[in-house]
Amino acid sequence: MTDTLTDAMLDDLRGRLGRAAAAAAAAGVDAILVSPSTDLRYLCGYHAKPLERLTCLVVPAASDPFLVAPFLEEPAALASPVGALGMDVLTWQETDNPYALVASRLGRVGCVAMDDHMWAEKVFAFAQEMPDVRQRAAADLLQELRIIKTQAEVDALAFAGRAIDSVHAAMAQWLRPGRTEAEVARDITDAIVAAGHAQMDFVIVASGPNGASPHHEASNRVINPGEPVVVDIGGTTPEGYASDCTRMYCIGEPPADFTEYYGALQAAQAAATAAVRPGVACEDIDAAAREVLTDAGFGQWFVHRVGHGIGLDTHEHPYMVSGNRRALLPGMAFSIEPGVYLPGRHGARIEDIVVCGEQGPIVLNNETRELVVL
Amino acid sequence: MTDTLTDAMLDDLRGRLGRAAAAAAAAGVDAILVSPSTDLRYLCGYHAKPLERLTCLVVPAASDPFLVAPFLEEPAALASPVGALGMDVLTWQETDNPYALVASRLGRVGCVAMDDHMWAEKVFAFAQEMPDVRQRAAADLLQELRIIKTQAEVDALAFAGRAIDSVHAAMAQWLRPGRTEAEVARDITDAIVAAGHAQMDFVIVASGPNGASPHHEASNRVINPGEPVVVDIGGTTPEGYASDCTRMYCIGEPPADFTEYYGALQAAQAAATAAVRPGVACEDIDAAAREVLTDAGFGQWFVHRVGHGIGLDTHEHPYMVSGNRRALLPGMAFSIEPGVYLPGRHGARIEDIVVCGEQGPIVLNNETRELVVL
Repeated sequence: MTDTLTDAMLDDLRGRLGRAAAAAAAAGVDAILVSPSTDLRYLCGYHAKPLERLTCLVVPAASDPFLVAPFLEEPAALASPVGALGMDVLTWQETDNPYALVASRLGRVGCVAMDDHMWAEKVFAFAQEMPDVRQRAAADLLQELRIIKTQAEVDALAFAGRAIDSVHAAMAQWLRPGRTEAEVARDITDAIVAAGHAQMDFVIVASGPNGASPHHEASNRVINPGEPVVVDIGGTTPEGYASDCTRMYCIGEPPADFTEYYGALQAAQAAATAAVRPGVACEDIDAAAREVLTDAGFGQWFVHRVGHGIGLDTHEHPYMVSGNRRALLPGMAFSIEPGVYLPGRHGARIEDIVVCGEQGPIVLNNETRELVVL
Repeated sequence: MTDTLTDAMLDDLRGRLGRAAAAAAAAGVDAILVSPSTDLRYLCGYHAKPLERLTCLVVPAASDPFLVAPFLEEPAALASPVGALGMDVLTWQETDNPYALVASRLGRVGCVAMDDHMWAEKVFAFAQEMPDVRQRAAADLLQELRIIKTQAEVDALAFAGRAIDSVHAAMAQWLRPGRTEAEVARDITDAIVAAGHAQMDFVIVASGPNGASPHHEASNRVINPGEPVVVDIGGTTPEGYASDCTRMYCIGEPPADFTEYYGALQAAQAAATAAVRPGVACEDIDAAAREVLTDAGFGQWFVHRVGHGIGLDTHEHPYMVSGNRRALLPGMAFSIEPGVYLPGRHGARIEDIVVCGEQGPIVLNNETRELVVL
């Protein structure tokens, strides 16, 4: 990783660590504790797997950040940007208590915040080691940093968007009559990696009635001509950014009762996208899509929020959901993915990743949103 | 999943749920809360991804278990064994508070235990919703069930062991001079899936000096003749059980200073395996390997515990580590993987998965433990 690390990237990381410390201070939190997670990667560039042995970045409100890591992970930690940042790395041996190591280096504190994905066993181990210290979720302390993407992050999401678009563009190779959803999904998995992702994260191939379940994955069901197929796919790039894009396919002509709602779905997706600009509330993006589908008589079959934020995680803040009155700001990135689901028959979803630009939406997925008839 | 679900499997799940409830009752815990994790899969067969929307199996000490799930995950939940078990599934809509739903159905309780891998944000959300309820880690309540494998689970681990053995057996196809670690790792990744795993979990290809870092993964370093190469690989089978096996390779003859310690490493690994039988303390398995390496003068370079439990997780209890005085019982499954790491030069590790049988060790990896010279 160090071989491609630029000064600009190190400056970015220093800025993030500084802003995290400032957010902690402003919230009366003495330190943020960050275990392996996208928060860890965001703050110091270290991409470590969550394991039973404690690795923990500590970002004190009022002193320098440091990393606690198992002795045998030290080379990996130092090979990450943590090394180039010159951060103190405190290692522990197999029979040491790493929670005590964090507590002792931290000294007297009153309140710590844990990254949102820290495992419960580690939350409770810290509570046991620091019984008088109040614990809370890092939540907004880190979300507020991550929720606004820099230009470099938007570029990284755009790269991911082009990569997943190229997989959709080649779908006719794999989606053929007589094949099962799972067979098609395996080919798509390979294609996601071949397109430049470091890993596949999910592949939904939902044919006919399976399309009526929004989170159906891929089964041994054979795909038949005339059945609409939902293909919702995503991966993570080597830089760590996620792609997520849904398009609709049909082998041959779709049934009439599908065509009835598909036009309304396209209009709903376009309306939500057109509504994106700074100052608009997140829930209004959801409402823009919902209104079109409701007016067309399909509102009751649009059973989920219209979108989720995306970045280092596939799902992160901000969520485009009723009740979220937060105003969009330039640099927020999220999905717009209304759907219509008719139980027992079929369903459809159209999904793009969209960034809120100064003047309006910047759409990162650009393959056709028409039903692709193969 | 339901199409291959047998009555015996359902009975197993009912037994696990019953034992979890009994363990909670015995510990004075009113309910165990289990989010998507291997604990969830173990208890009710539902293999769900951890996401921001709450899915939670609730196992009360004194009433029937139930599942809380997002409305759009209901079909997936019911298609899992949860459906065949006839468990109540309570769904929530996008704007509902699922934590309040759990709290209201649970009624008045004093103490709840959360699965060890529950995300901190969910732990804190439950704390906010149930402010007067004590929280603790599920820890031993579920570990004590999972730590003893049934014959069906041992069979599943043996299947995983044969699958990963077949990848090691074919290593000569991929490990050739002039290739990079990463190139070899990509081929191994494909082979792990082709061998019958549902997914690759990790591929370590550590050549020459990289072999001296126990958790090095795979880099762009070109593998040269005469360099020992550590290949430590694993995946998860469709049933959910993990494989994990390390073998040593060299393209051509290894250096003399490698041969010096490799024999001792083989002896250490064999000694630890031979020590496995009911009643022996976990730390004594570690000590058996350490003693051989120490006597041979290499003890200081064996820098990690000798092994970890394995099952639905690659790393789980029991850990074979100094200080763990727990006695082995029939059905415990774990790795035995001593290593020697010479900084700047090279390293070696030999790893098998071993089950504690009534009479002694049952070894699940059976490719040669000799250095494989290619």
